[in-house]
Amino acid sequence: MIAIDTLIYSIGLAGVAAQAAAGVLEAGRKPFDMFGMVVVALAAALGGGSLRDLLLDRKVFWIADQSYLITALAAGVAAFALARVVRLPARLFLLPDAVGLALFTVSGTQAALALDAPWLVASLMGVVTGVFGGIVRDVLCNEVPLVFTGELYATASWAGALLLVALGTLEVSHGWAALLAGALVLLIRLGAMRFGWRLPVFSARL
Amino acid sequence: MIAIDTLIYSIGLAGVAAQAAAGVLEAGRKPFDMFGMVVVALAAALGGGSLRDLLLDRKVFWIADQSYLITALAAGVAAFALARVVRLPARLFLLPDAVGLALFTVSGTQAALALDAPWLVASLMGVVTGVFGGIVRDVLCNEVPLVFTGELYATASWAGALLLVALGTLEVSHGWAALLAGALVLLIRLGAMRFGWRLPVFSARL
Amino acid sequence: MIAIDTLIYSIGLAGVAAQAAAGVLEAGRKPFDMFGMVVVALAAALGGGSLRDLLLDRKVFWIADQSYLITALAAGVAAFALARVVRLPARLFLLPDAVGLALFTVSGTQAALALDAPWLVASLMGVVTGVFGGIVRDVLCNEVPLVFTGELYATASWAGALLLVALGTLEVSHGWAALLAGALVLLIRLGAMRFGWRLPVFSARL
Repeated sequence: MIAIDTLIYSIGLAGVAAQAAAGVLEAGRKPFDMFGMVVVALAAALGGGSLRDLLLDRKVFWIADQSYLITALAAGVAAFALARVVRLPARLFLLPDAVGLALFTVSGTQAALALDAPWLVASLMGVVTGVFGGIVRDVLCNEVPLVFTGELYATASWAGALLLVALGTLEVSHGWAALLAGALVLLIRLGAMRFGWRLPVFSARL
Repeated sequence: MIAIDTLIYSIGLAGVAAQAAAGVLEAGRKPFDMFGMVVVALAAALGGGSLRDLLLDRKVFWIADQSYLITALAAGVAAFALARVVRLPARLFLLPDAVGLALFTVSGTQAALALDAPWLVASLMGVVTGVFGGIVRDVLCNEVPLVFTGELYATASWAGALLLVALGTLEVSHGWAALLAGALVLLIRLGAMRFGWRLPVFSARL
Repeated sequence: MIAIDTLIYSIGLAGVAAQAAAGVLEAGRKPFDMFGMVVVALAAALGGGSLRDLLLDRKVFWIADQSYLITALAAGVAAFALARVVRLPARLFLLPDAVGLALFTVSGTQAALALDAPWLVASLMGVVTGVFGGIVRDVLCNEVPLVFTGELYATASWAGALLLVALGTLEVSHGWAALLAGALVLLIRLGAMRFGWRLPVFSARL
């Protein structure tokens, strides 16, 4: 089991690094200095888990274990340095970001269930953990959040979170439930990227 | 007394529903997908109470009782569905929204007083509960917050909150104090809507 | 020692007042009403310390002691009133703001160290305390945060915070460490204002 825990922890760090690097590339469209880049990178990588922990009254994860903070910082600075030298394709980080989304969804939902949160709240905590960082990133860049308009992202997260909650009530073992839920997030997200799946855009008659 | 508690609880849910529906209509000016609408609706309906609970270190109200979350979600989706079919007048939600403002102001101020917050802090918590959701809604929509520029809204909330604090020091019973304070919020807000009362706009010589 | 504590407390209040007044001037470019100005002033003055306290799970400082809230409110209203009559130069508040930055950096870092936060987290809490208020102010005004693009500000804060952490491990007395760290923040910030020091602006090849 230690090997699996180590694997999950490593994937978590990789997800944080991917979201920090993607944050730097997103912020690169604005005339930010290096500090601005770093703040956007940290907000993108750590924002979702921070809001989850504040709402659930848990110790904030990157304060309890600063490996996450160091990883996000290092990934942000590395992406900053690289992007000054070579042309980084924006899609470079999409796959690790999708893996991170799956993992954050599962870990966020499990954290809420462990604190006896009601089922809908628990599933939403998975979504918050997965997508809130990207919303803060876009607000800081003074843009409408991408996650509100693009290919399925939060929906993938929510589907996986709901599956995890459902499997929990069916008394499926924690490990299998996490694996299946994470796989569902990943499948929907990769499908959305490949085939351009989207939610209907709102067109109110206002 | 159970009947009154039920009434207050129901008005609270109605206020949450009204702010969620109004959030959807506000977001409808942007090319958001359904997830974006739902997030804006939830932020508008639950944002104020969430910030109050975080600042006061209370359990977040919609995590403790997910009826609020379900109500906000249902109202947001219903408004979304309706607005695709018929033309919803933006003013439709103004009356329930004003009732919600009055109730949130009272409940927010009382919650802070119950935790022995100083009087100015307590009155501000009433305002935060009433108006912060609308500020988050507008920031997510990448707009200057409406509450900073329009007809009296936060001012109505603050007047009621200060009255509630004052009545508390005068040892007026809780029920009467709440009723009078809520009525003051409602009166000022409805008067502002009817007669266009506004605060002076800032015109600094910069 | 009581005299020094009183001095530090007074400087803290002066820093809060300076950031509130600067917030009003910043918001003055937008057509906000008086409530909008006050909210921006409060967010600018109290936002950084609030986020620090939420993340560290401490009692929010202006709820524990409402002197800060009253000071921010009074300074915001005074700046509002003054700016309607005379032309306030934007640079008027830069010196007290720099002093406030130094003090907030030191107090934020010390608060985190007192709770046994890891070193990098502690230094970041100093930066958060110093600069987050300005970020919220600019987001509310629907602008790209100034602190991401202008002369050295957060960098001055971070340098001082890291010095404070380093001096702590070297067992330098608390008083001297705070004084040296605060002086470093002030020196870098004043130098940046005088000589236009900046971080390199990001120029990703996107």
